[in-house]
Amino acid sequence: MTQKFSMDVTATDGAARTGIIRTCRGDIRTPAFMPVGTAATVKAMKPETVRTTGADILLGNTYHLMLRPTAERIHRLGGLHKFMNWERPILTDSGGFQVMSLAKLRKISEQGVAFQSHIDGSKHLLTPERSIEIQRLLGSNIVMAFDECTPFPATEQATEQSMLLSMRWAERSYAAFHDGSDHARDNALFGIVQGGVFENLRRHSVAALGEIDCQGYAVGGLAVGEGQQVMFEVLDYTLPLMPALKPRYLMGVGKPDDIVGAVVRGIDMFDCVLPSRSGRTGQAFIPTGTVNLKNACHRDDPRPLDEACRCSACQHYSRAYLAHLFRSNEILGLMLLTEHNLTYYQDLMAGLRAAISAGRLQDFVKNFHQIRTMAASEPL
Amino acid sequence: MTQKFSMDVTATDGAARTGIIRTCRGDIRTPAFMPVGTAATVKAMKPETVRTTGADILLGNTYHLMLRPTAERIHRLGGLHKFMNWERPILTDSGGFQVMSLAKLRKISEQGVAFQSHIDGSKHLLTPERSIEIQRLLGSNIVMAFDECTPFPATEQATEQSMLLSMRWAERSYAAFHDGSDHARDNALFGIVQGGVFENLRRHSVAALGEIDCQGYAVGGLAVGEGQQVMFEVLDYTLPLMPALKPRYLMGVGKPDDIVGAVVRGIDMFDCVLPSRSGRTGQAFIPTGTVNLKNACHRDDPRPLDEACRCSACQHYSRAYLAHLFRSNEILGLMLLTEHNLTYYQDLMAGLRAAISAGRLQDFVKNFHQIRTMAASEPL
Repeated sequence: MTQKFSMDVTATDGAARTGIIRTCRGDIRTPAFMPVGTAATVKAMKPETVRTTGADILLGNTYHLMLRPTAERIHRLGGLHKFMNWERPILTDSGGFQVMSLAKLRKISEQGVAFQSHIDGSKHLLTPERSIEIQRLLGSNIVMAFDECTPFPATEQATEQSMLLSMRWAERSYAAFHDGSDHARDNALFGIVQGGVFENLRRHSVAALGEIDCQGYAVGGLAVGEGQQVMFEVLDYTLPLMPALKPRYLMGVGKPDDIVGAVVRGIDMFDCVLPSRSGRTGQAFIPTGTVNLKNACHRDDPRPLDEACRCSACQHYSRAYLAHLFRSNEILGLMLLTEHNLTYYQDLMAGLRAAISAGRLQDFVKNFHQIRTMAASEPL
Repeated sequence: MTQKFSMDVTATDGAARTGIIRTCRGDIRTPAFMPVGTAATVKAMKPETVRTTGADILLGNTYHLMLRPTAERIHRLGGLHKFMNWERPILTDSGGFQVMSLAKLRKISEQGVAFQSHIDGSKHLLTPERSIEIQRLLGSNIVMAFDECTPFPATEQATEQSMLLSMRWAERSYAAFHDGSDHARDNALFGIVQGGVFENLRRHSVAALGEIDCQGYAVGGLAVGEGQQVMFEVLDYTLPLMPALKPRYLMGVGKPDDIVGAVVRGIDMFDCVLPSRSGRTGQAFIPTGTVNLKNACHRDDPRPLDEACRCSACQHYSRAYLAHLFRSNEILGLMLLTEHNLTYYQDLMAGLRAAISAGRLQDFVKNFHQIRTMAASEPL
């Protein structure tokens, strides 16, 4: 059993919970949003600025890091935390999702996934054992079991076969993680519930993972095209099956209203490239919705993006300036808008946490939707 | 006469001087290096980070800003300082150099330069009067006279004609600057000495500018391909002709050893894209010379770029990490290396200022060259 990893649920409001995940690298306030630091950097952000937005934990991508600069190199250089100058918790994915979406000529077998690098065409084999080894070399604090992200749409039969493979890989991941290393003593392994949009398969998957002593549970295979309503339905029947006192992580989600709906249903952790990727394309998140800074209407607008926002983009610059930066392809535009969007996401999480603690989550959610609906109905 | 603009020379060492230029936006310690903020941003840098490197003043480019977002728009939004969140002094060039190097279909006449924008092909006319108007709309603290940067190489005759045109334009710039506006009361106009590599023409140019009451003097038309030795020769015979108690600005210079040599000869101000542009290509300046982070030898190097450097790139990251960022085309690489290079330049200026104050400039220069020579002779 891991000594240094635990979760305290400090308050609940309906199915929603708030609490603290304790790790050897520090605490994570939940519900938590994890910015994505794909290639050992949250794109266009210094780590101290990521921390200033309110992030307690980052996500690192096994697939990217194993190819470049390689897990072995990062290990020799003292681990991912030191390499990228982020001393707080890091969760690493298993590489299972990205090997299917990014690699070339991939071939799945019982053993794992053989593939060619999208960078240089070099050949690699990712197995549960290798995925865990890579995550350990990186020094990950929350290690994800290696799984297959079931494609969507898929028949029930195909989804079942994929889920069962993931469950066998979860067992192998568990065995690899608990092979007696010091790393397993101080850090956590999360299992991933699969089963697509089929309740019986989700039930089977939760039960299978119950046989393994995971320190947390992710819900995988969602936000892949099924739509928000179906995603929420899956959460509605899956989350009650999961242990109440262990962290619940909804992978790859999502838009602000996805997050709000998932928190209401009992999710504790999220990751998504949306705030950072959108920030690099000129799309800003604000309480009333989104703003596209490439639209001509912003060129003379002296107002900040969001008058109530504490980020430096909103404190020091006009929409006109940000619009100018995007029109001129200036790097500072990407930097400022990424910072703003991550701040928006972190402040949304802080608002959710405060609302749950105060037993006012329903009001918070109502207000969240009302502001957006009113703005959407206003003439531009 | 401008009331709020003045220069105090606080110490001299040979021909070199150190001092303070006082402006309505704050003091500039000289010798000073001005980072280039072309499109209302020092590329890949927040202004507060530019300040942290030690910069007292930025340079803005009239040519770029007049085309996008336009001087009128910046004026409506409260001026360049507010627009880009830099409250300290800003020097703007006249657009004369960049219109010749960047614009399409340019045509020079006595009136000015007609050209098409390199961005959208739109037609513009830049005259001394329009250049001064733009710089005033931007709110520039040091306005440069509109000039023609003489091409290199050029015959003496062509250089003379070009210089004489620049001198007539300088008179028109002066008249336009001193048309009774408040802007002229609080800010300064600098004239630009032209004349290429011809001593008699440089002498003529300084004399012509002496007829105009400029608050500072730039040496233009250098660092255009003539080589360091010729550039220093031009400085050797030009600088003694110039007023001792007014700022001397060597435009577009340069490499670290160019700057050291020019300070020794009595230059007070510099601007150059080299540290920021090199930073974006993976080239770092350190006391021993330059480091190209794209070279494979850095991939496993746990050392910082420069152990003695105070910048965040050197304080928090290994060469291996920086090399990884450049190989992965990560924006953070551009951010960190720009910050490092600007810090190197500012610390070089601080070292020169301290050496002049202490009367130890010769030792400083000797040491500067010795470190580089020793490093160059070492095996890799």
